[in-house]
Amino acid sequence: MPINDTIGKISGNFKGKDIASTDQFSPKDFEKVFSVADEMKKDVQSHKPLSMLGGYAVGLMFFEPSTRTFSSFSSAAKRLGAVTIEHQNPAQSSSVAKGETLEDSMRVLEAYSDAIVLRHPEAGSAKRAADAVGIPVLNAGDGPNQHPSQTLLDLYTILEIFGHLDNLKIAFVGDPLHYRVFHGQFSGLSQYGGNTFYGISPKGLEMPKEYRNESYQDVVIDMKDVNKTLGEIKPDIVSVGRIPKEYISGDASQYNFVINADTLKELLPKSIIMHPLPRIDEITTDVDADPRAVYFSRQIRNGLYVRMALLGLVLGKIS
Amino acid sequence: MPINDTIGKISGNFKGKDIASTDQFSPKDFEKVFSVADEMKKDVQSHKPLSMLGGYAVGLMFFEPSTRTFSSFSSAAKRLGAVTIEHQNPAQSSSVAKGETLEDSMRVLEAYSDAIVLRHPEAGSAKRAADAVGIPVLNAGDGPNQHPSQTLLDLYTILEIFGHLDNLKIAFVGDPLHYRVFHGQFSGLSQYGGNTFYGISPKGLEMPKEYRNESYQDVVIDMKDVNKTLGEIKPDIVSVGRIPKEYISGDASQYNFVINADTLKELLPKSIIMHPLPRIDEITTDVDADPRAVYFSRQIRNGLYVRMALLGLVLGKIS
Amino acid sequence: MPINDTIGKISGNFKGKDIASTDQFSPKDFEKVFSVADEMKKDVQSHKPLSMLGGYAVGLMFFEPSTRTFSSFSSAAKRLGAVTIEHQNPAQSSSVAKGETLEDSMRVLEAYSDAIVLRHPEAGSAKRAADAVGIPVLNAGDGPNQHPSQTLLDLYTILEIFGHLDNLKIAFVGDPLHYRVFHGQFSGLSQYGGNTFYGISPKGLEMPKEYRNESYQDVVIDMKDVNKTLGEIKPDIVSVGRIPKEYISGDASQYNFVINADTLKELLPKSIIMHPLPRIDEITTDVDADPRAVYFSRQIRNGLYVRMALLGLVLGKIS
Repeated sequence: MPINDTIGKISGNFKGKDIASTDQFSPKDFEKVFSVADEMKKDVQSHKPLSMLGGYAVGLMFFEPSTRTFSSFSSAAKRLGAVTIEHQNPAQSSSVAKGETLEDSMRVLEAYSDAIVLRHPEAGSAKRAADAVGIPVLNAGDGPNQHPSQTLLDLYTILEIFGHLDNLKIAFVGDPLHYRVFHGQFSGLSQYGGNTFYGISPKGLEMPKEYRNESYQDVVIDMKDVNKTLGEIKPDIVSVGRIPKEYISGDASQYNFVINADTLKELLPKSIIMHPLPRIDEITTDVDADPRAVYFSRQIRNGLYVRMALLGLVLGKIS
Repeated sequence: MPINDTIGKISGNFKGKDIASTDQFSPKDFEKVFSVADEMKKDVQSHKPLSMLGGYAVGLMFFEPSTRTFSSFSSAAKRLGAVTIEHQNPAQSSSVAKGETLEDSMRVLEAYSDAIVLRHPEAGSAKRAADAVGIPVLNAGDGPNQHPSQTLLDLYTILEIFGHLDNLKIAFVGDPLHYRVFHGQFSGLSQYGGNTFYGISPKGLEMPKEYRNESYQDVVIDMKDVNKTLGEIKPDIVSVGRIPKEYISGDASQYNFVINADTLKELLPKSIIMHPLPRIDEITTDVDADPRAVYFSRQIRNGLYVRMALLGLVLGKIS
Repeated sequence: MPINDTIGKISGNFKGKDIASTDQFSPKDFEKVFSVADEMKKDVQSHKPLSMLGGYAVGLMFFEPSTRTFSSFSSAAKRLGAVTIEHQNPAQSSSVAKGETLEDSMRVLEAYSDAIVLRHPEAGSAKRAADAVGIPVLNAGDGPNQHPSQTLLDLYTILEIFGHLDNLKIAFVGDPLHYRVFHGQFSGLSQYGGNTFYGISPKGLEMPKEYRNESYQDVVIDMKDVNKTLGEIKPDIVSVGRIPKEYISGDASQYNFVINADTLKELLPKSIIMHPLPRIDEITTDVDADPRAVYFSRQIRNGLYVRMALLGLVLGKIS
């Protein structure tokens, strides 16, 4: 996270700011976004035509594919009445193929846009982009580093369900060593008192030391036993992510886990299961209809509202 | 067609319905769409800015490319003021490439959209998609099975020109065995009295037995003789489609045909030539300027109006 | 340039015209576009929501990739309230892959659109397209031939800075033999009195004889000496373009040049450096911040305003 050190704190003032990292947010900043997102949610659900960003243009430049983050930011901008300028896979486009630098690509897009949403596989690219242009850059994922709008939608979902962001028990299930989503949730929720974190993982995939604090503990298990472990911890939030094949070494059977109907029996009635999607086989489809499964019913939708809020805020149309 | 058995009939009420198959439509339902399309046509031609779908979002997910169906649905939605969320070739996108199921992809898109337009190479996929989500799904072609908006635009074009959909003589020229467009036209027009159908094809490409009724007859010919045959039948409607190379077996010369200036001489002054496009070499370009050639002048345009009508109807903005 | 011979002159009346070539423009026509572009600039910079093209649709068909021309035309249309129908790489799409001709593709797009923006690798394709349809076609680059909106934005930028388009000294640096941007600038500025042109190039890349007149002179040099040469000429405008590798023959060192901080010392305070972008290594990044470098600060932005003006004019919404 030192990568984004020099991006300024938000400190209550979003207008003109780059959104590169959740480290820029204080609890008050989070809550500002969430209260604006509440308004956006009401407007979208009532099909209110919005024109807050009429006369504005938002550039989207995604150097790696991301179906849902792209869709979410694109519709967020268009729902607010902005024009979008969309580049998916610009690496295959004429300019980048000819050797144009990220900085030049951003300066060109700046000429057409009032804010830029960037996804790029390299850690620190959002910072580089933000330094190259004078308009707000929103980081939509810079490789292993940061994906702040994902963290915001996760926290917003938790707040919506529990009514608070403190005094919660959160279990990360999968790969806390590499998984950006877990890093973001931990970093965000660590700002609130009384939260305890459990990293449920096979040996070798524990959360990096530099990310953690005393409220975090490793629960290294054979992943086949995930239900038993969850039954013992009884977390409020089960945050699930797939363990990518490239991180499996030695005895693969220890890495295999599945959240299924049996898992649901181990959880409290108030617990929730979160997943950033796409889900492959780490959660079975018979879990989906349970009200505690919030990935389709809440997280995706909240991503739209939170991104609408961010765009309205950095473009100074809400304060 | 049994694939769509369980999709409900429209029965005069479009709001919230999936549009998976022309089998859902009664003549009254067809006529409802056509009367709304008439209004849409007037508004588009007079450049009236429309906001009927302001505050709504339409998702387009095309698992196989289709230039004109995609363009047509996309502009239909945007012309009505909707935001679109567009995925072409999602199979190459991150989520589907990672192994996401069709059902999950649809549920994600549902979170951002009020209706989904789906094209997918597998018969029955529209039904699967419709079952996965709670918002209307419009089938924009599910492989060999159904393409209801194509059938609607074809019938709308015929109604516009002849003033009625009954007592017509229709000749299908090409491959009635496989060609979805012919199946749709036959299925739709069979609901009207007094229509007679002629399947002009080489041996082996006759319309499947389960699709046909007593008003349909095979006219198996050496396709070189198509003009003579059309001159004998004198159809009101010549519906043309290319015979794909993969369906040619044995003596290829029997499969070759071309609609050209000579064909025009065999047809009645009131006859029309239809083609869903793209046209390759099965109709020569010197036919295009004849008023009886309606593929560029009417069919394509009518596709826009019919799709605007469908979107307005299933989203409950027109009743 | 004989290719576009039969495209009509504009002669003060843009409505319904194809824009295939700068040869169609008189100085009065240029100035009409520029005065409308001035208005567009004001509106965009003040974030005024525009609805001039509400109820209109603009089709974009780009047979070869062009990040910035595509973005620029697409946002120009959308900023004015038009719906866009966008095809990038239609050669990979279903219809063209099946063998559809350019003429047929255009006629289909015509059915959905009120104007078409076309980019195509073949010289003369814009003329072919314009002949196929009855709505305005805007040439966004037809191979080595013409790219009129680029020329317009270049002239608009020069006018904005110098206040006039005559009595200027222009140096083309790079490859005047092949480079369409130089051909367009020369052709446009040649309509104004008192301009002198210098083609600074290695031997063999001089401007073709048929394009030039007595106000143009070759300055054949070893390109390493470009700074010295510019210091001697002291041009008002340094128009830079990369020499593509495929045009380098024999001793490659003669072809290498770079515009850098040393170049700036040779130029007058009022001189400007232009580049259509993308820039690779022919201009170093330490030049960018100099006010004389206008490629990021002016040219790109002016492309948007000029294209908005063109669309409004040919669609008859401004006169």
